[in-house]
Amino acid sequence: MRTRALASEFLGTLLLVFFAVGCAVLGVNFIGTLGIALAFGFVLLALAYALGPISGCHVNPAVTLGMLCARRIDVATAIGYWIAQFVGGIAGAALLFLLAKQVPGIHTDGAFGSNGYGDRSAVHINTGGAFLAEVVLTFLLVFVVLGVTHRVAVVGFDGLPIGIALAVIHLIGIPLTGTSVNPARSLGPALFAGGSALSQLWLFIVAPLVGGLLAALVHHVTHPAGEERTIADEVAAA
Amino acid sequence: MRTRALASEFLGTLLLVFFAVGCAVLGVNFIGTLGIALAFGFVLLALAYALGPISGCHVNPAVTLGMLCARRIDVATAIGYWIAQFVGGIAGAALLFLLAKQVPGIHTDGAFGSNGYGDRSAVHINTGGAFLAEVVLTFLLVFVVLGVTHRVAVVGFDGLPIGIALAVIHLIGIPLTGTSVNPARSLGPALFAGGSALSQLWLFIVAPLVGGLLAALVHHVTHPAGEERTIADEVAAA
Amino acid sequence: MRTRALASEFLGTLLLVFFAVGCAVLGVNFIGTLGIALAFGFVLLALAYALGPISGCHVNPAVTLGMLCARRIDVATAIGYWIAQFVGGIAGAALLFLLAKQVPGIHTDGAFGSNGYGDRSAVHINTGGAFLAEVVLTFLLVFVVLGVTHRVAVVGFDGLPIGIALAVIHLIGIPLTGTSVNPARSLGPALFAGGSALSQLWLFIVAPLVGGLLAALVHHVTHPAGEERTIADEVAAA
Amino acid sequence: MRTRALASEFLGTLLLVFFAVGCAVLGVNFIGTLGIALAFGFVLLALAYALGPISGCHVNPAVTLGMLCARRIDVATAIGYWIAQFVGGIAGAALLFLLAKQVPGIHTDGAFGSNGYGDRSAVHINTGGAFLAEVVLTFLLVFVVLGVTHRVAVVGFDGLPIGIALAVIHLIGIPLTGTSVNPARSLGPALFAGGSALSQLWLFIVAPLVGGLLAALVHHVTHPAGEERTIADEVAAA
Repeated sequence: MRTRALASEFLGTLLLVFFAVGCAVLGVNFIGTLGIALAFGFVLLALAYALGPISGCHVNPAVTLGMLCARRIDVATAIGYWIAQFVGGIAGAALLFLLAKQVPGIHTDGAFGSNGYGDRSAVHINTGGAFLAEVVLTFLLVFVVLGVTHRVAVVGFDGLPIGIALAVIHLIGIPLTGTSVNPARSLGPALFAGGSALSQLWLFIVAPLVGGLLAALVHHVTHPAGEERTIADEVAAA
Repeated sequence: MRTRALASEFLGTLLLVFFAVGCAVLGVNFIGTLGIALAFGFVLLALAYALGPISGCHVNPAVTLGMLCARRIDVATAIGYWIAQFVGGIAGAALLFLLAKQVPGIHTDGAFGSNGYGDRSAVHINTGGAFLAEVVLTFLLVFVVLGVTHRVAVVGFDGLPIGIALAVIHLIGIPLTGTSVNPARSLGPALFAGGSALSQLWLFIVAPLVGGLLAALVHHVTHPAGEERTIADEVAAA
Repeated sequence: MRTRALASEFLGTLLLVFFAVGCAVLGVNFIGTLGIALAFGFVLLALAYALGPISGCHVNPAVTLGMLCARRIDVATAIGYWIAQFVGGIAGAALLFLLAKQVPGIHTDGAFGSNGYGDRSAVHINTGGAFLAEVVLTFLLVFVVLGVTHRVAVVGFDGLPIGIALAVIHLIGIPLTGTSVNPARSLGPALFAGGSALSQLWLFIVAPLVGGLLAALVHHVTHPAGEERTIADEVAAA
Repeated sequence: MRTRALASEFLGTLLLVFFAVGCAVLGVNFIGTLGIALAFGFVLLALAYALGPISGCHVNPAVTLGMLCARRIDVATAIGYWIAQFVGGIAGAALLFLLAKQVPGIHTDGAFGSNGYGDRSAVHINTGGAFLAEVVLTFLLVFVVLGVTHRVAVVGFDGLPIGIALAVIHLIGIPLTGTSVNPARSLGPALFAGGSALSQLWLFIVAPLVGGLLAALVHHVTHPAGEERTIADEVAAA
């Protein structure tokens, strides 16, 4: 069971990065910011239903941190998930890099779908603004994940709001930072972009984790404690 | 329980204003009217599933008025919700203001996502037209909310049509007035925009409330009375 | 009960025409063909969940014809629905006309969201092509409605595919004819547009009805007969 | 029962090609790449709910191959489905061809919504890149289909993620190859386009089948084996 869950997190993060970052790298002139935002939300929605019953489909270290703080998973599971997610994100970026090399005129250096602030932001947001944005944007994602997988929510109505939340997060965030809200989504592309993408990477790891932590704290206020649905339940129910 | 519900309404309205009005303030050149309309609908859809079981996720004084007229909540709850929503809307606008200040070239005075008519409308709609539009647009939202949370509706299929309704309301309404249909969504940004945004604010408080009242009246005609699902039920079921 | 259902069909068709045709009349320069297509689908999705348990939310004479041929409703109900739908469509167009008059520079004569072929089609489709398009497009809508409300379908998953089907029907059909697939949606705006909109109206009444009839015939082949879910069941279950 | 399922696959593939490829042929100047991508996803979503309980709504030989490898259907059923899908795709393209002929200025030779690489790709992707893209894109579709119809998934939440997955697949794939991920969707239009569309057709038959096969293999790793929901179950439950 553990192996299935780790494979699920690895594969899900790989596919998230390949498809959604891929739209940003290969398709921006065709589908625009709106299309890229929908791509992020849509691929997460699809993965949430395909992989949710296996691993919860976190595919995001900030989500896993929120789940850990909300005591839905234990530390050992969280560490395994984090490793699987980062490795999956790198693998997804590598596969995308391989594909992009087959397209004449695609620049695989410089941006490559990496996140950025200052000169690397479309609106030149400053460092503090980028940090604030990533905290609040990740807060929404993790707060929605925790809420719709809480026992008070109606079963099945989790992947839809989670995917749709990620879409709206990108609608506001792409012009600001390219939108991380997911350290694993940021690491992979930054490794291939290199240069200042790497030197700015810290923000897109720290701020989403802060946002996820904050979401777990506020979730504790808004939602009743006590017995909750856990991934173990879901796998058992399968 | 009461505290959770008030916190939910405060937080939900905060997030609605920050994300959806934020798309209008920060993203209009990137995602266009279509993207902003989707942002409003998408964030409400996500919040409806995350907060619906806690407070019903009204996040809108006109919805709360409709729920009160339909006898789903009592007056004390409605008053508490209204305060939480207006304070949440102001807090969301304040957080957005703080973020926008970190982006060079973003004008935080003048419009700032506030609603308007006449010279402040993209199509220069007159005052009567703006009032009519806000009444009819709010009618759809509140009528859908009342219908899909009525006992005849299938459980779970509430956040989806509510969010999608808000998207279509913005598709038609953004060119007209920027679309309020929610006094709490209008107050916050108007406070930061100042000037004529404040002098026109009355319409975006009165007209949505009229629309919400009208929706409750028509809902009484179309839908059977008798025992209905209430927020108390939902929280009890949790 | 009969009165509720008729009120539901009247109101639903009114709102469908006001919001979706309204986006075409007031918003085309802001949201484009894609936005208008989504508006049609989104408003039907929302109405389907709000009014579906009351009347089935046909809001379309072609859907009612399909339901009649599939023996889900009786002739008396169908006639009542048809009257309510046509009157509702006219009322929706009248309300939209009243609103459009409050917007400087909106032309309420000529097109006004009416359907057309030949010179009144964006791509100048000929009469036979328009007839063929309306038949096939209506076929999809009515076939989906019959399928997702059939007893083999999962309860609740009806408004979503119905609304989404109407969106894709408009994505292909707006450039061709403006997309009717609904005689009640065509009649109202044509009355206010006048002129050649009225002389072409016959096609947008006949072709959708042919499409609806064809859908019922094919549905009889693809789907098992026998006991089916009917509106009476739904209202009884309420 | 067998006849109903074959009719369902024939009709579903016909409608998929007519509506989605039709948007590409008739609507690209009106709805853009984003609109075409949504059209593919939306029509599949609608068909999945309308035809899913009858045949599983594969409407795609690569999906049928994945279902066969996952032992959800037997070889005889797969062969029948494949024939129905290819014939349906040709019929859909023929109906679209007939309609396009009624529109002045629509070129029905050359592209006609067919897939391509090299000079026939919008970004001039090379042959290897096109093959890689089609394998990975089909992998996502078939992996999602297998996952959301697996017994661990929540009943009803299958058509939504499947349709949404197809939309995101087209968001990334339209600029690359026009996106096949479905040999039956590629064959029909290529027959009417002729020329190099036919000489490149092999890739859009082979690569999607490889992707579907790969998805079944990985699904076997991520998802528990044992008793699964099959189409026979679904039809029996009807």
